[in-house]
Amino acid sequence: MKCEIIAIGSELLTPFRTDTNSLFLTERLNKLGVQVAFKTIVGDRQQDLVDQVRIAIHRADIVITMGGLGPTVDDLTREAVAEALGLRLKRDQAIVAALYVRFAARRLTMTENNSRQADVIDGAVVLENPNGTAPGQWLDIAVDNHRKLVMLLPGPPSEIKPLFDAQCAPRLAETLPKRHIATRTLKATMIGESVADARIAPIYNQYTDVETTILAHAGDIQLNLICGKGLQELAQARVDELAGRIEDELGDLIYSSQGESLEQIVLYFLEMRGATLATAESCTGGMMAQRLTSISGSSRSFVGGAVVYSNDLKTEFAGVPAELIAEHGAVSREVAAALAEGIRFRTGATIGVGITGVAGPTGGSEEKPVGLVYIAVADEQATEVTEKLWPPGADRERIRQWSTQQALDLVRRRLM
Amino acid sequence: MKCEIIAIGSELLTPFRTDTNSLFLTERLNKLGVQVAFKTIVGDRQQDLVDQVRIAIHRADIVITMGGLGPTVDDLTREAVAEALGLRLKRDQAIVAALYVRFAARRLTMTENNSRQADVIDGAVVLENPNGTAPGQWLDIAVDNHRKLVMLLPGPPSEIKPLFDAQCAPRLAETLPKRHIATRTLKATMIGESVADARIAPIYNQYTDVETTILAHAGDIQLNLICGKGLQELAQARVDELAGRIEDELGDLIYSSQGESLEQIVLYFLEMRGATLATAESCTGGMMAQRLTSISGSSRSFVGGAVVYSNDLKTEFAGVPAELIAEHGAVSREVAAALAEGIRFRTGATIGVGITGVAGPTGGSEEKPVGLVYIAVADEQATEVTEKLWPPGADRERIRQWSTQQALDLVRRRLM
Repeated sequence: MKCEIIAIGSELLTPFRTDTNSLFLTERLNKLGVQVAFKTIVGDRQQDLVDQVRIAIHRADIVITMGGLGPTVDDLTREAVAEALGLRLKRDQAIVAALYVRFAARRLTMTENNSRQADVIDGAVVLENPNGTAPGQWLDIAVDNHRKLVMLLPGPPSEIKPLFDAQCAPRLAETLPKRHIATRTLKATMIGESVADARIAPIYNQYTDVETTILAHAGDIQLNLICGKGLQELAQARVDELAGRIEDELGDLIYSSQGESLEQIVLYFLEMRGATLATAESCTGGMMAQRLTSISGSSRSFVGGAVVYSNDLKTEFAGVPAELIAEHGAVSREVAAALAEGIRFRTGATIGVGITGVAGPTGGSEEKPVGLVYIAVADEQATEVTEKLWPPGADRERIRQWSTQQALDLVRRRLM
Repeated sequence: MKCEIIAIGSELLTPFRTDTNSLFLTERLNKLGVQVAFKTIVGDRQQDLVDQVRIAIHRADIVITMGGLGPTVDDLTREAVAEALGLRLKRDQAIVAALYVRFAARRLTMTENNSRQADVIDGAVVLENPNGTAPGQWLDIAVDNHRKLVMLLPGPPSEIKPLFDAQCAPRLAETLPKRHIATRTLKATMIGESVADARIAPIYNQYTDVETTILAHAGDIQLNLICGKGLQELAQARVDELAGRIEDELGDLIYSSQGESLEQIVLYFLEMRGATLATAESCTGGMMAQRLTSISGSSRSFVGGAVVYSNDLKTEFAGVPAELIAEHGAVSREVAAALAEGIRFRTGATIGVGITGVAGPTGGSEEKPVGLVYIAVADEQATEVTEKLWPPGADRERIRQWSTQQALDLVRRRLM
């Protein structure tokens, strides 16, 4: 089954915004065995919309429109789909009544234009939208003797997601041939995408029934495996077998075998070992702390730390001797170690992390170029300092992201 | 002039990745007076591609393809565009030779499939791609007596951006009627999108020659104004006049009148006043420090701070008396004030910020629900505490983002 997703709205054709709802829909559709073959973005122009719906109906089995269902004159999806399919619109008085109730509950007067949201295409099932005023519509029709499913869905993510899950997914599951999908997500870090691919492609290429996708972002590699079979157990066995072989090949470069984030894994390891963590960050400026505390429950293992941007604070909060900074410079192996040991001592945490480096774009020198970062991990037994020189040309944001990624991975390895 | 952008690649039809290059292209095209009317994403299937290029050529004046120019069997753009236009491909031996040189320079042997990248559509200008192996192509042709521009560009952002700027933009500027574009970006914070729109729509609706776009994200509102005229001065005068009237209406809710970020504005104000800033963050876990330090040069005004996730660290790093925490709880007006004053005292900064709250999803109570956050700003003269109760249903990430946004805005207002 081939699907086309049409995102509607002139704002999606500006430099500032584009469609992202389709990622959510694609994930859900793939699980139902539906491939997305085309995605199109069209502005709020009636004729463009009518033409695009005609094209989509011709080349896809399932057509999903997103957006253009609101009350304003720009909202043309209902009219355009009806025209493209040669069907009529009829105002549904039950929806009009529900709109009046909704407005009254908020002590607002309903303006007349809102009634347009009650216009339903002949033969369509109305899809209730508890999170917005405009309901969706579901059409199951024959076009030139081919069965076509057409869905008109609202644009806002907070409306389309629950609506699709509650009303479209079950209808699709009933309509489409049964297919069982198994997925696995493996994650690795501190290895390049092309190096990783070169090592595992000979393995996943043997599994033609499993679709393998590699994504790389900010030092993180994500491997998505997906397999569809008539039996759930068969599909699961195939992805698990392939996942196992990839894990054997990449070893401890893989930090997660069920899709958890690196932050989650570090916090999980800390909790398992009954350990706690504190950070003293210079060039990453709180990013490592921020990443860890983005996870709910992180307070059980992450006690906190210091953002020691100035040299004075390195001394004040992490007890780094001013002479040490004077002798070796703030960006040095020695200061990184002192930060890690100092923050560990000051906070009483089991593990202390110190990060200092040159994030750029200014502040680099021949001896200490932009991209040079020292990361220290200290525990009761030892302090280890890792020197990284990130590739020239990397911007401030990437240097900071890679550095926190590397620091989290070093903590993970210390805990393994 | 209407443009269609076609992004090519099956990976763009997965749940994991979609086209974002088109945002860059749209920005550049708009400045040249070209509207993007359609964006389409197609997989690596020859027939789908041929059909889509035919549709695009029919409905747009300018057609830009992105991707599918590499050496592998999946790279079908050259063949598909040639077929759609009824033109031939010819292998360009100069490109083949350049490929050999490129591979030799890296001590690699060029495999035969790489030669496909030298296939040029009849009549096309070759667009050199210094950042990749596959060159782009530019076609200026007549189809059914209409002049059409067709560009085949590579997919990777690091290749398409410099290539477009160096080779497509100048050619387009030469080809298209001269048009001068002026833009302005205003930013406001701590006001809802719909409230802001209700206040300024009556103003911008009077300027039908200026296109106004409103974007909202994480407590931030961005207003983009764009105007095209035959004369640069005329276009500039129109956007400046409208910008001025919007600034009059929204007053000090507008923090930036030239597109700067809130972090930049706060750092700019600090520097202007010769002031310094330190933060003591509990629920935001370093996010405020991270945002400030994402700006190069922030070390001149931001000294650093503490991430005081545990109660012990609130005492250790910001000198908050343990009894105060015991009496009022860690999430309280009193502790926020003590954090701000304490970190100011400990670091010697001019201004101290303290943030404590319940970011959720767990940890809330009837008295102190998820979303309750206290933000304190202390300077020599006074300590002020702001209580925020973010809307129920907001997730951890949003609560943290809104809270740092509010904190930055409070510092800005203190400095005004």
